[in-house]
Amino acid sequence: MMKGKELPVAFVTFKSRHGAALVSQTQQHSHPLIWITEMAPEPRDVSWRSLEIPFRILPLCKIGAVVAASLLTIFFAVPVTAVQGIAKLEKLKKWFPPAMAMELIPGLSSIVTGYLPSAILKGFIYVVPFAMLGMAKLGGSISKSREEIKACNMVFYFLVGNVFFLSLISGSLLDELGEYFTHPRSIPSHLASAVSAQADFFVTYILTDGLSGFSLEILQPGLLVWDAVKSRTAGRGDEENPYLYSLPYFRIIPSVSLSILIGMVYAVVAPLMLPFLVGYFYLGYVVYVNQIEDVYETAYDTCGQYWPYVHHYIFIGIILMQITMIGLFGLKSKPSASIATIPLLLLTIMFNEYCKIRFLPTFRHYSVKDAVEHDEQDRNFGEMEINCENARIAYCQPTLQPPNFMASKSTSSQPLVS
Amino acid sequence: MMKGKELPVAFVTFKSRHGAALVSQTQQHSHPLIWITEMAPEPRDVSWRSLEIPFRILPLCKIGAVVAASLLTIFFAVPVTAVQGIAKLEKLKKWFPPAMAMELIPGLSSIVTGYLPSAILKGFIYVVPFAMLGMAKLGGSISKSREEIKACNMVFYFLVGNVFFLSLISGSLLDELGEYFTHPRSIPSHLASAVSAQADFFVTYILTDGLSGFSLEILQPGLLVWDAVKSRTAGRGDEENPYLYSLPYFRIIPSVSLSILIGMVYAVVAPLMLPFLVGYFYLGYVVYVNQIEDVYETAYDTCGQYWPYVHHYIFIGIILMQITMIGLFGLKSKPSASIATIPLLLLTIMFNEYCKIRFLPTFRHYSVKDAVEHDEQDRNFGEMEINCENARIAYCQPTLQPPNFMASKSTSSQPLVS
Repeated sequence: MMKGKELPVAFVTFKSRHGAALVSQTQQHSHPLIWITEMAPEPRDVSWRSLEIPFRILPLCKIGAVVAASLLTIFFAVPVTAVQGIAKLEKLKKWFPPAMAMELIPGLSSIVTGYLPSAILKGFIYVVPFAMLGMAKLGGSISKSREEIKACNMVFYFLVGNVFFLSLISGSLLDELGEYFTHPRSIPSHLASAVSAQADFFVTYILTDGLSGFSLEILQPGLLVWDAVKSRTAGRGDEENPYLYSLPYFRIIPSVSLSILIGMVYAVVAPLMLPFLVGYFYLGYVVYVNQIEDVYETAYDTCGQYWPYVHHYIFIGIILMQITMIGLFGLKSKPSASIATIPLLLLTIMFNEYCKIRFLPTFRHYSVKDAVEHDEQDRNFGEMEINCENARIAYCQPTLQPPNFMASKSTSSQPLVS
Repeated sequence: MMKGKELPVAFVTFKSRHGAALVSQTQQHSHPLIWITEMAPEPRDVSWRSLEIPFRILPLCKIGAVVAASLLTIFFAVPVTAVQGIAKLEKLKKWFPPAMAMELIPGLSSIVTGYLPSAILKGFIYVVPFAMLGMAKLGGSISKSREEIKACNMVFYFLVGNVFFLSLISGSLLDELGEYFTHPRSIPSHLASAVSAQADFFVTYILTDGLSGFSLEILQPGLLVWDAVKSRTAGRGDEENPYLYSLPYFRIIPSVSLSILIGMVYAVVAPLMLPFLVGYFYLGYVVYVNQIEDVYETAYDTCGQYWPYVHHYIFIGIILMQITMIGLFGLKSKPSASIATIPLLLLTIMFNEYCKIRFLPTFRHYSVKDAVEHDEQDRNFGEMEINCENARIAYCQPTLQPPNFMASKSTSSQPLVS
């Protein structure tokens, strides 16, 4: 019975970093799916729930998470359009008779009908990252940081698809959408004309997202409300989730990356947007430096694992900008300039491939030279045995740790007999 | 001056296979393009010329080889069609007046005009693998086996593009070809109709390729002629190229794989082709077993490195068959069967991905468990030091080896003073 409860996962501690670095990068068995080794995440970062998933089901979990996120991204427009359709004033009066009172105050009805669709859209867009994080948690990653990175990716592609592209093609008939897939050559010119038409929308998007987003970030109304609710319902003292007060990467990184993408695409099409964007970035820098240093707690430390993904988002922005430029030159009847931009596109793709060869392996692997150097430093300072011992006892499942009654402040969890 | 002649390449010998296996699979430096390690090929298989290429130019060499092969594949039809146009009887009489003598013998002119286009095509197709091998040799691989594997890949895609697809679309106007790229959804139905129409051509292709190819393989006229020419022009005794008498993988594997592809695509469309194919494979088995065992010399031993590529060619054949089936069901007005085949396509792709995860890593890496086991065997038999010493002296550049005068049989290379 106990054997059935055993998990085919183990944390292996080595006597030196050198041995750990060598083992984590090599194939141990001629059957590549047996004895798989990788560097363990931080002890506080381990996703114990995901370690229980049998290895055969793991690819299905990964594919399932990606498929669910793709379905959410593709079919997101359906409920939003439905709700926005209801939000028109006539239908609103039919469904909510008290809304007729709005007509009494002059101008209020126009304000409400003007802002209500975008407010509904923003509400939906606010909820989606949490749904994506839930899907990523079911995706079977071994550490919580990787789950959040996956959620960050999903949210970014969701925003690019539903905020950027959907706004570009809004208003087009569905037939035109079918034309995009059947005539791939016309995509740059369609993109360029749509981009030029939607410049005002994106300027307002940057302004509202910047100002309202940053003010909400500083005020933190969500967490204040949640904390007030929690303190009223007492007795849940020591089950604190450290992720509640940690920086929500999966919400911040995609929205800032989307603003970078919008800025790059519009840098040449509608340059008047750039001062607004620069102001957005300055304000965001000030706000987030304050938040990261003084407000949020650090739940885990990935040592820079988000950077390859941010680099990838910027690369996508550059590629979209170049495709838009190719289309724009075609629209302005300058085909020579259009053709001259294609080598630029190829050079950008080749540069990205070079970056992947030159920089990405170091994010994935712990190089042997660094491991040997750190071992030398440890031996010089005599810290080798202490580090070994700390590594050996660090990975202990939270449920198997002895309860710490002294740290609890709640009266209902103190032992009856001390 | 000597430092300028130094190459940034070295052969490193380890005291145990364990150390070699660990080092060949790990990243040594935090700069991933410094201290790159990989398992060395066999000593007789090393491509000394490619080791001279500086590492920065190596990606350009690889891309250049691929681009050259792609250009040859895409624009191959141009000279062939031009020569086939000249081969029509009227133009032939204009360019080669002696051809008018053919009209005197009854039936000969029709035979010649019937066979001449396909003979010209076969002649061109015979030359192309050697051109591909030349391009692969410039591609910068560290071993001759890898160059031949690259050439094998290029020749396979050339054959698939120019024999399979070009025969399918022959006769279509160029406008229809443009339609393929603008209406991706109609590709399966176009493919299915073209495949059904060309069944006879491929039956004759299999028969002629099989019978003529195998008879030429047994007779070896090319090597006989080459040897006769060489023995007449005396004095080139000891510069023997072992690859002249080794199995030409880059010609055999692609043509057999193309026959497998044709067989799989036509297995359901025109099943009467299958007996011809089975006869082709039986004959080929008998011929090649004889050739490999008793005729050809072994120039190198890759220990099975060709298999992943053969597996990939068979996979491409299966995918083409399934796309053809989807189109065929659509042509026969059974859209439900068509849609039911799409999950089969997805399952095949997923199975290929599973094979790549389950089997491909063992082709690339030498697993640590195998290395330790082989070391144990060596220690038990006391062969450890002998193997180390052999490995250390094995990799010696041919030009640096002392000349072996005794083995030469040619009189012009014996020393004047013994």
